[in-house]
Amino acid sequence: MTRKHPAPGAKASRPPHEEEALARIRPKEAEHNHTWEVATSLLAAVAGDGRAKGMVVGSVARDTWLSGDRDLDIFLLFPAGLSREELEERGLDLARKIARRFAGSFREKYAEHPYVNATIDGLDVDLVPCYEVASAAKIQSAVDRTPFHTRYIAEKIAPFRDDVLLAKQFAKACGVYGSDQMTEGFSGYLCELLVLHSGGFIAFLPAAAEWKPGTCIDLEGHACKAFEEPLRVVDPVDPARNVAAALSATRMFEFVEYCRGYLEDPSADFFFPAGPASLGRDGFARALARRGTCLCALTFATPPLIPDIVVPQLRRSLASVRGLLARHGFPVLQDDCAMGEDRCILVLELLADRLPPVTRHTGPPLWDRANAEKFAEKYWQNPLSGPFIRDGRYLVDLERPFTDAGDLLRSPEVLAVGLGKHVKQSLEKGWEVHRGEECWQEEFGEFLSRFIGPASPLARRKRGL
Amino acid sequence: MTRKHPAPGAKASRPPHEEEALARIRPKEAEHNHTWEVATSLLAAVAGDGRAKGMVVGSVARDTWLSGDRDLDIFLLFPAGLSREELEERGLDLARKIARRFAGSFREKYAEHPYVNATIDGLDVDLVPCYEVASAAKIQSAVDRTPFHTRYIAEKIAPFRDDVLLAKQFAKACGVYGSDQMTEGFSGYLCELLVLHSGGFIAFLPAAAEWKPGTCIDLEGHACKAFEEPLRVVDPVDPARNVAAALSATRMFEFVEYCRGYLEDPSADFFFPAGPASLGRDGFARALARRGTCLCALTFATPPLIPDIVVPQLRRSLASVRGLLARHGFPVLQDDCAMGEDRCILVLELLADRLPPVTRHTGPPLWDRANAEKFAEKYWQNPLSGPFIRDGRYLVDLERPFTDAGDLLRSPEVLAVGLGKHVKQSLEKGWEVHRGEECWQEEFGEFLSRFIGPASPLARRKRGL
Repeated sequence: MTRKHPAPGAKASRPPHEEEALARIRPKEAEHNHTWEVATSLLAAVAGDGRAKGMVVGSVARDTWLSGDRDLDIFLLFPAGLSREELEERGLDLARKIARRFAGSFREKYAEHPYVNATIDGLDVDLVPCYEVASAAKIQSAVDRTPFHTRYIAEKIAPFRDDVLLAKQFAKACGVYGSDQMTEGFSGYLCELLVLHSGGFIAFLPAAAEWKPGTCIDLEGHACKAFEEPLRVVDPVDPARNVAAALSATRMFEFVEYCRGYLEDPSADFFFPAGPASLGRDGFARALARRGTCLCALTFATPPLIPDIVVPQLRRSLASVRGLLARHGFPVLQDDCAMGEDRCILVLELLADRLPPVTRHTGPPLWDRANAEKFAEKYWQNPLSGPFIRDGRYLVDLERPFTDAGDLLRSPEVLAVGLGKHVKQSLEKGWEVHRGEECWQEEFGEFLSRFIGPASPLARRKRGL
Repeated sequence: MTRKHPAPGAKASRPPHEEEALARIRPKEAEHNHTWEVATSLLAAVAGDGRAKGMVVGSVARDTWLSGDRDLDIFLLFPAGLSREELEERGLDLARKIARRFAGSFREKYAEHPYVNATIDGLDVDLVPCYEVASAAKIQSAVDRTPFHTRYIAEKIAPFRDDVLLAKQFAKACGVYGSDQMTEGFSGYLCELLVLHSGGFIAFLPAAAEWKPGTCIDLEGHACKAFEEPLRVVDPVDPARNVAAALSATRMFEFVEYCRGYLEDPSADFFFPAGPASLGRDGFARALARRGTCLCALTFATPPLIPDIVVPQLRRSLASVRGLLARHGFPVLQDDCAMGEDRCILVLELLADRLPPVTRHTGPPLWDRANAEKFAEKYWQNPLSGPFIRDGRYLVDLERPFTDAGDLLRSPEVLAVGLGKHVKQSLEKGWEVHRGEECWQEEFGEFLSRFIGPASPLARRKRGL
């Protein structure tokens, strides 16, 4: 059962369960007023300093934030004539000055530029220096684009604010909200563009339910041939950019399935995360026993960098460790990684973690006489079998260097695979190897629970997980 | 170190170890006389009957048989005008009549035509009816070609009789003598042609040591483009036929390696099989324990047919059973089959014979909506995991139907794979599954010993196996 798109110009009436969800996710008046009071004081402080223009950006500026959100993004727009060094120096100086005045303490963080993060009156405030440029075509770094996004959305979003709230909350409940490296999902800006394009939440879901790899959404009639990501949403303010570039095919189609599930049997529940997502240590042990597989985990200290730098290195390390296991004959069923505050984890589920000593090694063909004779010379005395011939090629059975996956994962071989700079630095200080139910760590409870019983967001909801 | 080809026209002097081998393999005078006495009486009996011409063919006719050989092939040449039925009827009648007169009992066998096999005065005599045709181009069945082979070789072989004996015995010691389906090696006729082509045994070995896949040997200047086998030897009496068609790449290059080993360090030993080839039950158990692998064997009654019919069915069955194990996730390291008098064996060496209950199953992509929904519907209630999504495709973890390879091999699934007609008929009456060292059967001692410690003939000799 799919719902019809609304007739052009007509405003479809919102079904009761969506109204019910909205009542819970629309910011309360007091919440709204508090956020804007803080924002106004901060803008006044920026104006008082005089070096930069202050601008509220993000969902607060667009009035598309969800009740309970505590994020406030204040951009500090400096003249485009400054050098990068000047921008960073003056920008940080101003941000520190404001943070010092409004918050007891603050943190300096680093994305493309350094910025300041502070907790001010219960809000998580980012103070981000950027260049003020005349058009989006002239941006000097990614953050310069943000004010243009805010202006583009602010102009058009007024009739669709509730629709954006529903879309964001729906994506959140599906577990696909966030364009960070770990989530690989939908950014707030992407949700806004998709709602704008469909003319509301009601028309958006049936459209998303039909997405295919390569679906292109182009609000301003640019083109999206050059993009290779599974969903292509041309940035209205910068046509060279795919707003959905961070969205993985897995997240995209988890969302597609979730939309279909909602359209078939809509309810307010779909807007709120299902019950507790952690199995607990005992539930985890039971699930693992039922699968009968061999679980291995590596844990190590989290490198002191932001997730968007560490997570790609974790993924690369995971692929390399899986490759190492595969080269040694251990069949990996699935693997995943997570970054915690203090520790990171790479987890691998094997069909077998112990293998027989023998491993077959392929040599040259006999008609490559020089190499064949070298090979045979090397292995005449091999204890498991003499070299032998199959289809004209030399083979030999050798002793496997690692018959136990745990031994391999504890060996220095791990340091020799592609790990990424900061993960490698962390591993060089040491790592732990866990086996079976000992892989359970409360810190990674949700992650491990989902790993050991993989289910799509819709499947989890249907099965009451 | 390779030996030079002899200068044209010059007869290379034979090294002492080859003379030593010849002294052992040349038929003794009494042996020679006995064989020809039997042959002469049989030919006289054929002539006395008058319906067909008798002809001694094979290595006895060419005087290229090895001391100890007990085979005598007598062909019964009937006029080409007979129908197949007439040939078979009259041929069998004549063959039976002779066998009855000279032997107490005889067996009727079937290749392309029926023929009679009898033990006469200690010789294993085949009495084979065929057509007498004017030229090899006019043969009506494969056996009709044999008289032409005999005439071709008999004309030319006189100066090379000892060379042929050495070549055959060398191939025998290497384990590659015989063009039957199990050996996949060199026929006697092939050995004769190769020796003729090289002008003797001494020049033959360095030539064989340089063989490559596709090497073509063409004594009468025909062509061998159409052949696809690894060694191509155009039949001088029938250019459309590759005399080496039965030779597998494995056997071909085992022989190549054996030649190289002999040329490097020649000795009479190379002409005689190395020591006892069976490990015995205890040695087998020790070898298996050192490999640590999981051995499985199926045994069943040998179908009542000649090896050239049964063996290809065994190989096909083996490939099918390996495929069955692979489809169920059991990794097969190697496999082989053997046909005994009473029982046949398929043996498979697995890296693991027990697997975890979980197995991952791939479904359709989400954008194939109709099939995706059918798939999800089927698996919502799956106990191990809900359907989940990876890269836009549905996956599900299911309970593996067989977690133990032995259970699978004992199940009726075995009867559902491609087995070949007669092997299937035999299996339908039942089969046994053996595990680990219980796979040992004295009857297959040599076969199993070679299986569990694979080594080329040269490697076995070097390692004293």
